[in-house]
Amino acid sequence: MADRYTPRPEHKFSFGLWTVGNRGRDPFGDVVREPLPPVDAVALLAEVGAWGVNLHDNDLVPIDASPADRDRIVKEFKAACRQHGLVVPMATVNLFYDPRFRDGAFTANDAGVRAFALQKTKSAMDLGAELGAKIFVLWGGREGSETDACRRPDEAIKRLREAVNALCEYSIDRKYGFKLALEAKPNEPRGDIYMATTGASLGFIPTLDHPELVGVNPEVAHEQMAGLNFVHAVAQAWEAGKLFHIDLNDQVPGRYDQDFRFGSANVKSAFWLVKFLEDVGYDGPRHFDAHAYRTEDYEGVRDFARGCMRTYLILRERAKQWNSDAGIQALVAELGNQGSRGLGYERLDQLTMELLLGVRGEGA
Amino acid sequence: MADRYTPRPEHKFSFGLWTVGNRGRDPFGDVVREPLPPVDAVALLAEVGAWGVNLHDNDLVPIDASPADRDRIVKEFKAACRQHGLVVPMATVNLFYDPRFRDGAFTANDAGVRAFALQKTKSAMDLGAELGAKIFVLWGGREGSETDACRRPDEAIKRLREAVNALCEYSIDRKYGFKLALEAKPNEPRGDIYMATTGASLGFIPTLDHPELVGVNPEVAHEQMAGLNFVHAVAQAWEAGKLFHIDLNDQVPGRYDQDFRFGSANVKSAFWLVKFLEDVGYDGPRHFDAHAYRTEDYEGVRDFARGCMRTYLILRERAKQWNSDAGIQALVAELGNQGSRGLGYERLDQLTMELLLGVRGEGA
Amino acid sequence: MADRYTPRPEHKFSFGLWTVGNRGRDPFGDVVREPLPPVDAVALLAEVGAWGVNLHDNDLVPIDASPADRDRIVKEFKAACRQHGLVVPMATVNLFYDPRFRDGAFTANDAGVRAFALQKTKSAMDLGAELGAKIFVLWGGREGSETDACRRPDEAIKRLREAVNALCEYSIDRKYGFKLALEAKPNEPRGDIYMATTGASLGFIPTLDHPELVGVNPEVAHEQMAGLNFVHAVAQAWEAGKLFHIDLNDQVPGRYDQDFRFGSANVKSAFWLVKFLEDVGYDGPRHFDAHAYRTEDYEGVRDFARGCMRTYLILRERAKQWNSDAGIQALVAELGNQGSRGLGYERLDQLTMELLLGVRGEGA
Amino acid sequence: MADRYTPRPEHKFSFGLWTVGNRGRDPFGDVVREPLPPVDAVALLAEVGAWGVNLHDNDLVPIDASPADRDRIVKEFKAACRQHGLVVPMATVNLFYDPRFRDGAFTANDAGVRAFALQKTKSAMDLGAELGAKIFVLWGGREGSETDACRRPDEAIKRLREAVNALCEYSIDRKYGFKLALEAKPNEPRGDIYMATTGASLGFIPTLDHPELVGVNPEVAHEQMAGLNFVHAVAQAWEAGKLFHIDLNDQVPGRYDQDFRFGSANVKSAFWLVKFLEDVGYDGPRHFDAHAYRTEDYEGVRDFARGCMRTYLILRERAKQWNSDAGIQALVAELGNQGSRGLGYERLDQLTMELLLGVRGEGA
Repeated sequence: MADRYTPRPEHKFSFGLWTVGNRGRDPFGDVVREPLPPVDAVALLAEVGAWGVNLHDNDLVPIDASPADRDRIVKEFKAACRQHGLVVPMATVNLFYDPRFRDGAFTANDAGVRAFALQKTKSAMDLGAELGAKIFVLWGGREGSETDACRRPDEAIKRLREAVNALCEYSIDRKYGFKLALEAKPNEPRGDIYMATTGASLGFIPTLDHPELVGVNPEVAHEQMAGLNFVHAVAQAWEAGKLFHIDLNDQVPGRYDQDFRFGSANVKSAFWLVKFLEDVGYDGPRHFDAHAYRTEDYEGVRDFARGCMRTYLILRERAKQWNSDAGIQALVAELGNQGSRGLGYERLDQLTMELLLGVRGEGA
Repeated sequence: MADRYTPRPEHKFSFGLWTVGNRGRDPFGDVVREPLPPVDAVALLAEVGAWGVNLHDNDLVPIDASPADRDRIVKEFKAACRQHGLVVPMATVNLFYDPRFRDGAFTANDAGVRAFALQKTKSAMDLGAELGAKIFVLWGGREGSETDACRRPDEAIKRLREAVNALCEYSIDRKYGFKLALEAKPNEPRGDIYMATTGASLGFIPTLDHPELVGVNPEVAHEQMAGLNFVHAVAQAWEAGKLFHIDLNDQVPGRYDQDFRFGSANVKSAFWLVKFLEDVGYDGPRHFDAHAYRTEDYEGVRDFARGCMRTYLILRERAKQWNSDAGIQALVAELGNQGSRGLGYERLDQLTMELLLGVRGEGA
Repeated sequence: MADRYTPRPEHKFSFGLWTVGNRGRDPFGDVVREPLPPVDAVALLAEVGAWGVNLHDNDLVPIDASPADRDRIVKEFKAACRQHGLVVPMATVNLFYDPRFRDGAFTANDAGVRAFALQKTKSAMDLGAELGAKIFVLWGGREGSETDACRRPDEAIKRLREAVNALCEYSIDRKYGFKLALEAKPNEPRGDIYMATTGASLGFIPTLDHPELVGVNPEVAHEQMAGLNFVHAVAQAWEAGKLFHIDLNDQVPGRYDQDFRFGSANVKSAFWLVKFLEDVGYDGPRHFDAHAYRTEDYEGVRDFARGCMRTYLILRERAKQWNSDAGIQALVAELGNQGSRGLGYERLDQLTMELLLGVRGEGA
Repeated sequence: MADRYTPRPEHKFSFGLWTVGNRGRDPFGDVVREPLPPVDAVALLAEVGAWGVNLHDNDLVPIDASPADRDRIVKEFKAACRQHGLVVPMATVNLFYDPRFRDGAFTANDAGVRAFALQKTKSAMDLGAELGAKIFVLWGGREGSETDACRRPDEAIKRLREAVNALCEYSIDRKYGFKLALEAKPNEPRGDIYMATTGASLGFIPTLDHPELVGVNPEVAHEQMAGLNFVHAVAQAWEAGKLFHIDLNDQVPGRYDQDFRFGSANVKSAFWLVKFLEDVGYDGPRHFDAHAYRTEDYEGVRDFARGCMRTYLILRERAKQWNSDAGIQALVAELGNQGSRGLGYERLDQLTMELLLGVRGEGA
């Protein structure tokens, strides 16, 4: 029962294994959903209409897997992707779950931890390359502190630079052709995380040895946790040629990391985002880094995944409408003429709201 | 050119004189709009379709007006209301603009200031009664502190109680029949304001001499400044029989007091609010305590005011749709049966989003 | 090596079993510390100088323990408390970990879940009474929603009332003599939690059948998550005779629930809090509901626990100093005389800061 | 009565004319202090011990002053600075007060407004150069939006780049030798401000024609409004060689722009900041961009200004103590040895707290 909001491969909708595979654990309760084996996740994603599947190394290969196990698992996964017609556009590395990373990975005070993190990331790059990924995301979720007594923050930045430089070298050496995308977050699970915003990452990149290989992966929820305008952050990244990937989800400002279904918390902000991506012709993956409520079973997970994509497509349609709505465009045409008059932004925003709510052009 | 979103008197839409009369001053810039005399504000409100006009004492009568001037001004205002068919459902008192209130009014350390505040409020009650208002709002915008060295906070509560008790007595003595509505706010213009949330007011009311006369006036922006779910606060007030008035506007959490056009920042939260008010049969005023962007002239102010009301009516229509949407109601009917299954909340919320965006029931 | 900041029983410092027993799990990583058996936690608490130990039912007795196991466990725990000289001032119930509570306990849509929650709480009250607790805390961590489609929030309040009324009856019937203390939290683990602030609880209590039995248990972190002034909330509770218990910890506003060591995030706010509690003569437990950083082993847990108590005692000393500091008291004596002069609050606050930093009265 | 916390010129403490000259206006009340003529402000700053005075163009010269008036005013101001021994280390431009800037200055939709803003800034640079300033700060307080309908955010960035490039050219042409310092802010007075964080500015600078001339001016309050760790932002700027200036004040996260006395809201964060600046050898101005509470007269303004500097000096002393405290340094020496042990951060942070509170090294 396809309709005009049915996802198609050209929409480039992708999900992480960890998103549909999220089992509902939170700080106050344990898992509520059975494990979803990666090959089943691939089937589920194909069923709901996704184009791509992304992964952390350990979403697929257990951290303690033998080489033989690793190879078998990867082989089965590739077969499942082939069978279901899914691609792996992006890979990343888990530098946060293992207790060794409890004080960070690339920025940890212990040189042994830093070396382990680097080695683990290189292996994750190997895996990503093997699966055909061209984008490699780095999210330093534990690169931070609860007390700034533990290290000087400029030392952390130096360590982070050293690591990213080494990873760029590795990608060049192996001819992986990866674009590295840095993902910022202000806090959680650490009290404060270094490189707290997409802007901070954009400021860090030009200080690298290979700035041309490194861009950003802004995430709606992470920027909105700090109450920042996500579209502005995305626009800065895009304008600087650094929007290598994007994480779509939703979040109420000033709270724990919620990773809600795309568009479900602030649909107006989601609208401006979709409009921006479509207007500028962003052609990378639309990756949903979100998960279903803890109240759901896997049927609810399907609803969640379908909802992310449907909302994107509804907003895409609304964005096109906005660009062709005569009343709106008449106001847009006047934007440059300020003079001493009012600027008409209340009217423009109200028409936008009415368009968003589906009551423009109904003779309403 | 009326349509089904055209305001009518039975919708009970009201605006404060200070809302359409807001001149655009902010901490970093001065006024941008000419003064709007109260009688002109009445005309403007009538033109856009409002039912009621509310006021602080000094929105109408300058603080230093002579008794004769005061009476003339009131007479002209009443005439304008009559002429334009507007009522005055609510009155309030300005206890924040005058420098004497720089450390609070009812809670000020100086007994003289407290006495002045009480006297000023009684006069404002006289004015409100003369204009036919039945609701009297108390917003203690300066009742707070930047440093808790200045007074013990329990002392502030005692002073506040003494003042509200005296005002209840005054209303009884004069047979004004006022319902007093307390309006909470967490901060701004003070570092912290006492009675920071609607919940705090609900906790305070039962400690008064005449709790039956006192309720609350929750404001969207004030509750959302603290990142709280406004509908939950309104529901608690309603359920306790204390929803005497309501201030509708919008606000991004964790910021300065924005007083945006209703529904313009978080339309989903606005939807649940309208749905709640309509479902429970709230029949008080729908008061918009908001103002136009500083970019606007008075034509933009009209757009702003019309937009507040249209959005309310659109959301009201959507709420009715929600109550009769077969797909949604089928899920609602199952809400009590949890068992070990998923609860279907992702699906229910996604259907709500699609209904809100106007794509349910289109065969979409 | 006792000094003047060494905790003594009369300070009434207590910790929950779950605080020193916290194993460091968070949304992005698993446990990092071995389980701490309750009897070992008692020993650890005695070692660091605590007076009391509090618990959720399942901190001590596994949810699936047989009656015989339950009795044996309780017996051993009581023996350990006796041996180490610790009391159990407060007990509470875990209504959040079990998957059955994934959509709430007392407010769940499923009547079976609500009944189970009530039964479980009664058993927890039995346990608390058996251990000698006189305060029973209710924290409804899962009583909330991610989407307000799932239930009307006033219905949730009615269900909550029904449950608390039933629990009061139970306490009366069994002659347990419990004072029930409601603990508020704005969000996490739910998107929004009903009864989001201490104020909301204070508004709810007067609507109960036995309001005299029910008070509040304000928590620093929970109130500060919403950016609210914690001391003001505590003062309102105290002034209303409802400060039945208190949860001390620390938190940066607008973030995930951090439960940091007392005083470690905002020591000035902690100072005003300690000063208030000491000035008014609060004589209930000083309960620390916090946990050690995830970087720590059990030696670090001891440091954490000692630090909570030392900071409290340092601030208590500073509060006494404030009350006897001649320069400060001279300013305090003038607080009621506003007139047209400046109020001297900058000076008063700066002297407070200098006192807090330990440079008053040094001839500095 | 000098003590070891008495400011001296080598501390490089500076204040803006607008800080001690702040008259206490806020969104809910008018001015409470008489105007402070610039020459009197200079005298006041000299009296309290400041080294430098900074200014916006219109803090000194009214926007509509004739050239002759302008020259006379500047001459008198220079004389006052000479007389009182104050320098002018930094100048800036007011692009926010005049109604023409109601929709931005460099990013306004109206090309005439953009041209006016550029011209006005060049004149402010002339003024700054004439006064001997070597740092020119750019704060785009109105460069933002309430609705993203008004312009595409990448277009705003392009306009901003064009303006900053032109200003760099101007400084080069005139041989002014200015270092330009961009000051970020997330919101207020606009709903959202472009270049919301120091990180965003650091990302923007490398895209300029003369990145070597442009750095940042991080402000405590602005970063903390978004709940970000200010020291981390400063460290990134410093490490990139871009810490050209700094604005010291204080702020509770998630609120209106408070501009409180340095160290008065979060003294621990202020401690880490002072420690960082002193440890790395930052030798630029310590500029206080704050103002006295609205409760104060000019005696209170003096207290406020003195308090900013005293707190800085107290924290500087504490920072030195930290670096030489044997117990603390023993822990610091172990930071790199993680192994499987706990990391001792609770202990380290608690010792820091005790040092901060002045109870280390007392045999306490």
